[in-house]
Amino acid sequence: MSEQVSHQSIKVGVIGAGGRMGRMLIEAVNDNPQTTLKAAIERQGSSLVGADAGEVAAIGCLNVEIVDDLKSVVDAIDVLIDFSLPDATEQNMQICAEHNVAMVIGTTGFNEQQEQVLTQASENVAIVYAGNYSTGVNLSLKLLAMAAKAFGEEADVEVIEAHHKHKIDAPSGTAYMMAQAVAEARGQQLQDVAVYGREGQTGEREAGTIGIHAIRGGEIIGDHTVMFIADGEVVEITHRARARMTFAAGAVRAATWVIQQSAGQYNMQDVLGLNE
Amino acid sequence: MSEQVSHQSIKVGVIGAGGRMGRMLIEAVNDNPQTTLKAAIERQGSSLVGADAGEVAAIGCLNVEIVDDLKSVVDAIDVLIDFSLPDATEQNMQICAEHNVAMVIGTTGFNEQQEQVLTQASENVAIVYAGNYSTGVNLSLKLLAMAAKAFGEEADVEVIEAHHKHKIDAPSGTAYMMAQAVAEARGQQLQDVAVYGREGQTGEREAGTIGIHAIRGGEIIGDHTVMFIADGEVVEITHRARARMTFAAGAVRAATWVIQQSAGQYNMQDVLGLNE
Amino acid sequence: MSEQVSHQSIKVGVIGAGGRMGRMLIEAVNDNPQTTLKAAIERQGSSLVGADAGEVAAIGCLNVEIVDDLKSVVDAIDVLIDFSLPDATEQNMQICAEHNVAMVIGTTGFNEQQEQVLTQASENVAIVYAGNYSTGVNLSLKLLAMAAKAFGEEADVEVIEAHHKHKIDAPSGTAYMMAQAVAEARGQQLQDVAVYGREGQTGEREAGTIGIHAIRGGEIIGDHTVMFIADGEVVEITHRARARMTFAAGAVRAATWVIQQSAGQYNMQDVLGLNE
Amino acid sequence: MSEQVSHQSIKVGVIGAGGRMGRMLIEAVNDNPQTTLKAAIERQGSSLVGADAGEVAAIGCLNVEIVDDLKSVVDAIDVLIDFSLPDATEQNMQICAEHNVAMVIGTTGFNEQQEQVLTQASENVAIVYAGNYSTGVNLSLKLLAMAAKAFGEEADVEVIEAHHKHKIDAPSGTAYMMAQAVAEARGQQLQDVAVYGREGQTGEREAGTIGIHAIRGGEIIGDHTVMFIADGEVVEITHRARARMTFAAGAVRAATWVIQQSAGQYNMQDVLGLNE
Repeated sequence: MSEQVSHQSIKVGVIGAGGRMGRMLIEAVNDNPQTTLKAAIERQGSSLVGADAGEVAAIGCLNVEIVDDLKSVVDAIDVLIDFSLPDATEQNMQICAEHNVAMVIGTTGFNEQQEQVLTQASENVAIVYAGNYSTGVNLSLKLLAMAAKAFGEEADVEVIEAHHKHKIDAPSGTAYMMAQAVAEARGQQLQDVAVYGREGQTGEREAGTIGIHAIRGGEIIGDHTVMFIADGEVVEITHRARARMTFAAGAVRAATWVIQQSAGQYNMQDVLGLNE
Repeated sequence: MSEQVSHQSIKVGVIGAGGRMGRMLIEAVNDNPQTTLKAAIERQGSSLVGADAGEVAAIGCLNVEIVDDLKSVVDAIDVLIDFSLPDATEQNMQICAEHNVAMVIGTTGFNEQQEQVLTQASENVAIVYAGNYSTGVNLSLKLLAMAAKAFGEEADVEVIEAHHKHKIDAPSGTAYMMAQAVAEARGQQLQDVAVYGREGQTGEREAGTIGIHAIRGGEIIGDHTVMFIADGEVVEITHRARARMTFAAGAVRAATWVIQQSAGQYNMQDVLGLNE
Repeated sequence: MSEQVSHQSIKVGVIGAGGRMGRMLIEAVNDNPQTTLKAAIERQGSSLVGADAGEVAAIGCLNVEIVDDLKSVVDAIDVLIDFSLPDATEQNMQICAEHNVAMVIGTTGFNEQQEQVLTQASENVAIVYAGNYSTGVNLSLKLLAMAAKAFGEEADVEVIEAHHKHKIDAPSGTAYMMAQAVAEARGQQLQDVAVYGREGQTGEREAGTIGIHAIRGGEIIGDHTVMFIADGEVVEITHRARARMTFAAGAVRAATWVIQQSAGQYNMQDVLGLNE
Repeated sequence: MSEQVSHQSIKVGVIGAGGRMGRMLIEAVNDNPQTTLKAAIERQGSSLVGADAGEVAAIGCLNVEIVDDLKSVVDAIDVLIDFSLPDATEQNMQICAEHNVAMVIGTTGFNEQQEQVLTQASENVAIVYAGNYSTGVNLSLKLLAMAAKAFGEEADVEVIEAHHKHKIDAPSGTAYMMAQAVAEARGQQLQDVAVYGREGQTGEREAGTIGIHAIRGGEIIGDHTVMFIADGEVVEITHRARARMTFAAGAVRAATWVIQQSAGQYNMQDVLGLNE
């Protein structure tokens, strides 16, 4: 990337630069033509402090040294991406709010005080805060709600998810979120209508129920299909995750969006324009 | 059906009563508890003029004689359903506008003059005019627009449709409508970005294009899948028509809706409440 | 069809001409360019005796009067198709064996004596005897056995079937046959490895198991997918029944095949050339 | 891996150890419990000569130094895996034939003389020679031939393949192989029956043709579906490649099989027992 282009680029910092998610975020920042990595932060004491962030991420030298102090680099960036731990993110929110730097937060597990810090920080700066940064999953949840409203109980709904053989629970969290989106749009409680597996003398399908099926095998990253089965037609909405990288790319997309917003708290559906 | 109920029922006329779609419309009118068939029209010279519309549709006598002149029956109906040919529909629109009868039109291929007649007629009466009356297809068009906006040009879009071996053109009208919905949502002209089939040294896929593929075989009624293929994830929206009756039932549903509207032109998404 | 063509055609008789399956068989015989209906038989006392077989099947007059005595028409046919009841089929097998007429039998529930009659009859004439005459289902069972052998336990196998909302049991008989075909090919007992539905803390997927999932909704006639999920690739074999007519067409196909065979008992996989 | 186990292990050499395929082969040899890497060869002048093969493949040190001369290591191995270029493979075949070392060859583009060297070498040693080492693809080709025979021209066949947006030609070689397998089984020449894309006034589908459709988008590694569409039922055979590693693992599986064979030329379907 030429100097000129990188000057116009959105300047991004990444917290937890040496972790698995941090490395993917660094790669995703580098891949996005609108963004340039300008800061990479690790916890104090990490052996990676001083190393080049690009080399740690195995994508070649980026001339960005990993540092252990956000304050020392915060003025060099437009937006900070933080997928780390609640205590660290709490401090980072305070620093960003003071230095007028937007944020994209993927950290989960905030306590009440940390939620308050988030609320206060978002009075000063624009912050995207979401549990899942995949465009496709956030989109699918919206599509499902719309389909459920259009069909009402005219259509029988079945959710089928598939994951790798190592997964130890079923169904997936995303399958629950999808079934929940349908139930909500129809004014139902999911626990009242969910059916898991069918075997033996089941009787006719009860109207309004939602069947949920969990396929397991191989190394499938995560596929989800929701079927709306009316008498004369069927609508299916399918999401297939092909690479975990997609979650990092979604966070970088949120970074390019958030720097154009006024102060406030946003979620991924705002970023995607799904709430207009 | 008792006399009393049929008096409260919506009185429906059907154009092309002896054709394949006409027969299904007659059956659908009869199946819908809110509607009663009160007129059935065929072209002059058809051998079916004078026959009972229900017997022609193989659903038993309805005591509705097929006539060859809309004017002679137009005052007996609240709404006319017309899936015929542009020239015939042009005349029917003029008659309905004069006699204050709402319309549900499924005729395709209007020329400019016929479009004008439609516009004029809809100043006097309420008209639903749609290329496709299925709940699922109209819902899908909405979902596609939403997905196209969320992904922007990050996702490569491919449309795959499948129809029976007797179909003489490709792609299907519904496939065009779906590709159009995506193009519009992305601010594109479909003709600038559509790609039909790929063979030979094609080069890399050009960003922003929409691939459209037409599968033909057997007696497939009509399946459509639109894929949004991002680098790390895929969202697919699929519609499968399992019975042609679903289109006729949708048109009758539109008939029950249109008689409650003021003069104007509407589409099936208005009927389904998808534009609210 | 001209006289000349029908003289070269295979002459077919159908038992139970007035029943649901009989009517479909008559239509299928009429649709197949190699076959002509030459006899239609009903039980004594049926009100349909004397009626035209084509009119009863709602496909127009075929000039074949329904009779109540196979013997009176057996010499006019090359092959008899019999989907009726064990007692009737027992008598029909004896008549066909005496008159050198081949048979296609879809009757189920033979007792031991009837099995013996079948064995004796097939010493004189060629008989196809099968529980399912769909080309696709018989083919799929063969494909599944081949896939199971090729992958061994390298691939995790999952069976997903979908049927209409009125079906009162699960999984479908065909889903069991498919899972059974995989288990057999891997030297397993199905009951030792079948898993129906997954919910909660399931632990990792156990190697060698076969997951079986039953989707229910709308008016789906019957879809079956078997997935072979290896770590780096997936093979799926899917069968979709779109019309019940396909079973009748398969029986007529068997009729065109069986008249070319020497005496003996055959199944549908022989007809399809799958056992070569 | 202990010394003892590695002594019983099959000793494997890999040509082109520094290339993309070579690195995957080294990893696959290491992953397979029956095989041990004992030789790794690069072209003369490569900067990787002298480096450890495992470190080059990024799987940790294997104590196997990359050399530039097959002759120096050929007596240390049972079988050589060669996915390189025709000229190199020609020499390697001669060396292996002299030293009684079996081969697994994935090199493509042999000229006539090289084909002859292959034929001669396979008189002395066992050689597997295949264009594609995936279990799933080879299995699918067998399944397709079987399905094509069972359906004959009763079913309309359509091939749909999907690959990443960077692919510069269409359809894929695997799609051609699949269409070819169907055409052969039906006694057709593929070029006489292939149809690529459909647009405009196509007329009814011509019986016996094979539609081939190429979807392009994102980073799809390679999906292939072949549909057999009969009037009343559909059979689909789908292959999805989820990781390129699967081709390397197949070659190593071939290596464990070929050392048990007498001299001769074999293909991957022999390895998989699909030709029995």
